[in-house]
Amino acid sequence: MGLAILCSGGDAPGMNAAIKKFVDYLQKRGETPYLIYDGLEGLIDGRIKKAAHEDVAGILHRGGSVIRSSRSKRFYEYAYRQQAYTNLKKHGIEGLVVLGGDGSFCAMARFCGEFPVRVVGIPTTIDNDIYGTDYALGVDTALNTIRDALDKIYDTASSFNRAFVVEVMGHQSGYLTALSAIASGAEICVIPEKEFQISLAQERLKKEISQGRRYILALVAEGTGRTEEIARWIEKSLHFETRVTILGHIQRGGVPTSYDRMMAFEFAVMAVDYLLDHPTSNVVTVFYEGQFALKKIEEVANKRAPLQQKYIAMLDRLD
Amino acid sequence: MGLAILCSGGDAPGMNAAIKKFVDYLQKRGETPYLIYDGLEGLIDGRIKKAAHEDVAGILHRGGSVIRSSRSKRFYEYAYRQQAYTNLKKHGIEGLVVLGGDGSFCAMARFCGEFPVRVVGIPTTIDNDIYGTDYALGVDTALNTIRDALDKIYDTASSFNRAFVVEVMGHQSGYLTALSAIASGAEICVIPEKEFQISLAQERLKKEISQGRRYILALVAEGTGRTEEIARWIEKSLHFETRVTILGHIQRGGVPTSYDRMMAFEFAVMAVDYLLDHPTSNVVTVFYEGQFALKKIEEVANKRAPLQQKYIAMLDRLD
Amino acid sequence: MGLAILCSGGDAPGMNAAIKKFVDYLQKRGETPYLIYDGLEGLIDGRIKKAAHEDVAGILHRGGSVIRSSRSKRFYEYAYRQQAYTNLKKHGIEGLVVLGGDGSFCAMARFCGEFPVRVVGIPTTIDNDIYGTDYALGVDTALNTIRDALDKIYDTASSFNRAFVVEVMGHQSGYLTALSAIASGAEICVIPEKEFQISLAQERLKKEISQGRRYILALVAEGTGRTEEIARWIEKSLHFETRVTILGHIQRGGVPTSYDRMMAFEFAVMAVDYLLDHPTSNVVTVFYEGQFALKKIEEVANKRAPLQQKYIAMLDRLD
Amino acid sequence: MGLAILCSGGDAPGMNAAIKKFVDYLQKRGETPYLIYDGLEGLIDGRIKKAAHEDVAGILHRGGSVIRSSRSKRFYEYAYRQQAYTNLKKHGIEGLVVLGGDGSFCAMARFCGEFPVRVVGIPTTIDNDIYGTDYALGVDTALNTIRDALDKIYDTASSFNRAFVVEVMGHQSGYLTALSAIASGAEICVIPEKEFQISLAQERLKKEISQGRRYILALVAEGTGRTEEIARWIEKSLHFETRVTILGHIQRGGVPTSYDRMMAFEFAVMAVDYLLDHPTSNVVTVFYEGQFALKKIEEVANKRAPLQQKYIAMLDRLD
Repeated sequence: MGLAILCSGGDAPGMNAAIKKFVDYLQKRGETPYLIYDGLEGLIDGRIKKAAHEDVAGILHRGGSVIRSSRSKRFYEYAYRQQAYTNLKKHGIEGLVVLGGDGSFCAMARFCGEFPVRVVGIPTTIDNDIYGTDYALGVDTALNTIRDALDKIYDTASSFNRAFVVEVMGHQSGYLTALSAIASGAEICVIPEKEFQISLAQERLKKEISQGRRYILALVAEGTGRTEEIARWIEKSLHFETRVTILGHIQRGGVPTSYDRMMAFEFAVMAVDYLLDHPTSNVVTVFYEGQFALKKIEEVANKRAPLQQKYIAMLDRLD
Repeated sequence: MGLAILCSGGDAPGMNAAIKKFVDYLQKRGETPYLIYDGLEGLIDGRIKKAAHEDVAGILHRGGSVIRSSRSKRFYEYAYRQQAYTNLKKHGIEGLVVLGGDGSFCAMARFCGEFPVRVVGIPTTIDNDIYGTDYALGVDTALNTIRDALDKIYDTASSFNRAFVVEVMGHQSGYLTALSAIASGAEICVIPEKEFQISLAQERLKKEISQGRRYILALVAEGTGRTEEIARWIEKSLHFETRVTILGHIQRGGVPTSYDRMMAFEFAVMAVDYLLDHPTSNVVTVFYEGQFALKKIEEVANKRAPLQQKYIAMLDRLD
Repeated sequence: MGLAILCSGGDAPGMNAAIKKFVDYLQKRGETPYLIYDGLEGLIDGRIKKAAHEDVAGILHRGGSVIRSSRSKRFYEYAYRQQAYTNLKKHGIEGLVVLGGDGSFCAMARFCGEFPVRVVGIPTTIDNDIYGTDYALGVDTALNTIRDALDKIYDTASSFNRAFVVEVMGHQSGYLTALSAIASGAEICVIPEKEFQISLAQERLKKEISQGRRYILALVAEGTGRTEEIARWIEKSLHFETRVTILGHIQRGGVPTSYDRMMAFEFAVMAVDYLLDHPTSNVVTVFYEGQFALKKIEEVANKRAPLQQKYIAMLDRLD
Repeated sequence: MGLAILCSGGDAPGMNAAIKKFVDYLQKRGETPYLIYDGLEGLIDGRIKKAAHEDVAGILHRGGSVIRSSRSKRFYEYAYRQQAYTNLKKHGIEGLVVLGGDGSFCAMARFCGEFPVRVVGIPTTIDNDIYGTDYALGVDTALNTIRDALDKIYDTASSFNRAFVVEVMGHQSGYLTALSAIASGAEICVIPEKEFQISLAQERLKKEISQGRRYILALVAEGTGRTEEIARWIEKSLHFETRVTILGHIQRGGVPTSYDRMMAFEFAVMAVDYLLDHPTSNVVTVFYEGQFALKKIEEVANKRAPLQQKYIAMLDRLD
């Protein structure tokens, strides 16, 4: 039985670990693994290859994805999905493992409704905003990359009266920003999920400055669009020399952490087992309230996970 | 109300994060935090200090423990425990937070039975072998330190026909070794919890070498005492040039990961809340089956957590 | 004989190594080391302390400066310089070691002309634009921090058709940008020292894209102010999704590299030896054309080192 | 004109950077680059490939060597060298760039005396013991890897009364050990080049312990074979709990530093230019007293660089 793996949407650390485990474990179970290059674009164009050991040797500690990823506009059209299915059929591929996020899961749910293909989604996005799972591949590595950047900034913070405004990734999700603010003890955290009351922050910080505070670290979620505003406010109202850092795509790269590798392995094994053993529907592997589980793809797609209340509470403690 | 924190036994990354959160959160709750330096030795000798902001500023990203740790033989004697209690009483300290492992929890359980002091233990050991909790502070950082070393070894592995035998910490526990073997895809894993069948491994590897395998990575838990034996076996039977690495105390150091900081914060807040709000007995903060909880110290002490069956199963898949 | 050390201007990795060596070596030579906190501001305000072993223990691997730094407007006024001298005299300090850049050296040259104090400057700035020396403390660490960020970006670059525009520190100096572009193989490098011909770059890259180029990495020196312009140009003319990263103060932090520590030690020993043995004038320690030497402070101050021709030539090879 | 590159002997970080620059620069100069896989073994067996862009894309930040390396016994025999030459001739390869050490240079010197091939050696060994050059590729990365390990050990050192004995690579050369001891401020450094007087060290350390020293870091060069002896001595005579770390092959891996990449580029460009422009003899690229130069291969081979006196002097200052 042939099964294939592909990456869809934004890449994230841990993809390679999932790919490697998919290939190794499927071979151990006596079946044939295929790699689809360049995501749904490659699926449409037939860039499909039977996986050999060399394709996945020595990739565990590499960031990015060796089979690359893509966003595909063409996949919205039925004709291209038809073409995609024909490509799968040509290789005898009956099941797909898709590393991606909400958008990719929606696309796959539709695809599997139209054609006799089973899919298992593995949640993969550093934003950690996929509904129904507390964890998506790449998050732990991204958090540590941001933490490392903030640790470096703290080194220099102690030398001067300075403020540092750091923009962290996340469009509608403040997860990375919130957890980084907690883990690094930032003074300010601006996220979409929590109103930032500038006057309260000003009062608190003015008091702390009068008591000897030498530096301010402010984290701002990219999606709020308030990075520059916060920087100007600190400079004008708190009279600290203020420098902006925009972390950007650094946050998507880096050697995957141990945690991301272990999660990738668990998800990949669950995905393979499900597809080989009893694929009654299309599912997503999740880690929810401390347990691994499978959820129907329709349950997960088209929704967005809110930031957990406990993190909001931890941020309140920062104030 | 005065509460104090101390570190006992082997140090581990994340101790400083717990210490900082203990101080900050206790102050936020309007109570007085104390620091006890040099563990139980310092408790006996009265090295106790009311914590000031400067004591814990900028320590989040530092390995080790700013209040240091120790092993204490004297604490086994009643007279010294009496002296320790007198020191606490002098400062009005009614509760203690202890960062340590099984041995420290046993000592504290006895101490709290003799004197009117409440204690909360926070599991802290890179061995991750404390009964009743799936996580102890320091483990995630240690796993990533080992992973980083193994990633470096893989770089050089691809250049030659070579075997690398790496000794990983863990006296009776193979946790670090097992998880590192899984996360880095080692070919051999020798731990106390699983019989290592040298003849089976030899057969498997000879076959793989004949199919083109260029290198072998073998992880050996320190507690098995078999590092040299494994190295000699590979050299003699598999004819690979073999080099030994003993990671040693590198594994205890390093900047704490985001995960270790978050766990340290959760544990510290739980500990403070319990001691301030309803300290009916002496407890340990745990993370068990995906949930944070408090367990009675007697439940946790004097036992040792076995390596979870799921990791044994994952190792089987390596074979 | 008393000698003191202070940091002035922007901080840089390696300051702590120089401070530690200054203290240790001076003690070894039987003299008394002093620390001046908060730079010239602290000198004016008398924040001077006889150095003890504990002040410099365990600081080698810490970024920033344990004695902090500052920029001082007051030091431009004679009255404050007079006050600074009085403070030095009070402690019997006859010589100063100053970790800083051109501006600090100018200030010290004037100060030493007015009062009987000898000074040795140690070039310290990640910009590496101090005249008369090929190396300033902090440069190697900054280069490796930037490199690490670019390596992470490359991980993710291979997954998509994307361009990455990274702003690197450097006001009038393109040194960090140029060397980072060379060391990481960037496709575009925009620095103050070299005209960037947008039409030539466009032609070259269009050709490469037609031949299969999947990503573009563009480095832009902060001082050119062209970061946004370059990003917009790539997006519009080359049709690549483009993301901006501004590294900011991350570049000043981080654990000092081995190279920065060794240079710090050499400079510190040279400074101490000069001040103790034959301080006929005020000098700066330099590393010039592969040799350590001392140059008169007037030779070094008030000029700016141009980017070496060999780096311009290496950039030409990138085009 | 065809030129080829190969790696010989122990691998070192920076090899990939040299390989990439060799290919890119040679193409820029309009000539044809070849890659020889698996070192001299691959040369004998004809594993030679015309280099394509994909062979060297994205390898700058990878440790090890993508064309691998080997030690070859067969190359000592004339018949195999004859075969090697035939392979080169078949591809029209007239010049070779060899990344390696003294042994490899000797082999090449002989080979080029027998057959009409020109060779340029690029010094590559983390031991930094090649005669006639102050720098060999890989040294800076290795120093930083060791430093990072020692920094981690210092984290944990401050918690306990403990000694750490760390074995550093280097057979006859104490370079890495000596420079690491200096850069990390070790208390003990045992290298082949300097007599270690155990009684003097004992006296000094006993005095320091009585004054409050809490930990001891001892670095021992692998080639002295004294790691265990030193550990036992500290335990018995100084009564510190002592742990041994053997860094092993970790020291050969890791992402190449900026310095190693820049040196690799310089050496590679020099090698290509020499081979294309005026290859009157067989040479080695060197960096000597701050200058890049070419030296005749016979001058460099068959000798060993002693540890520079200035480092011995710096070690004396540690005592």
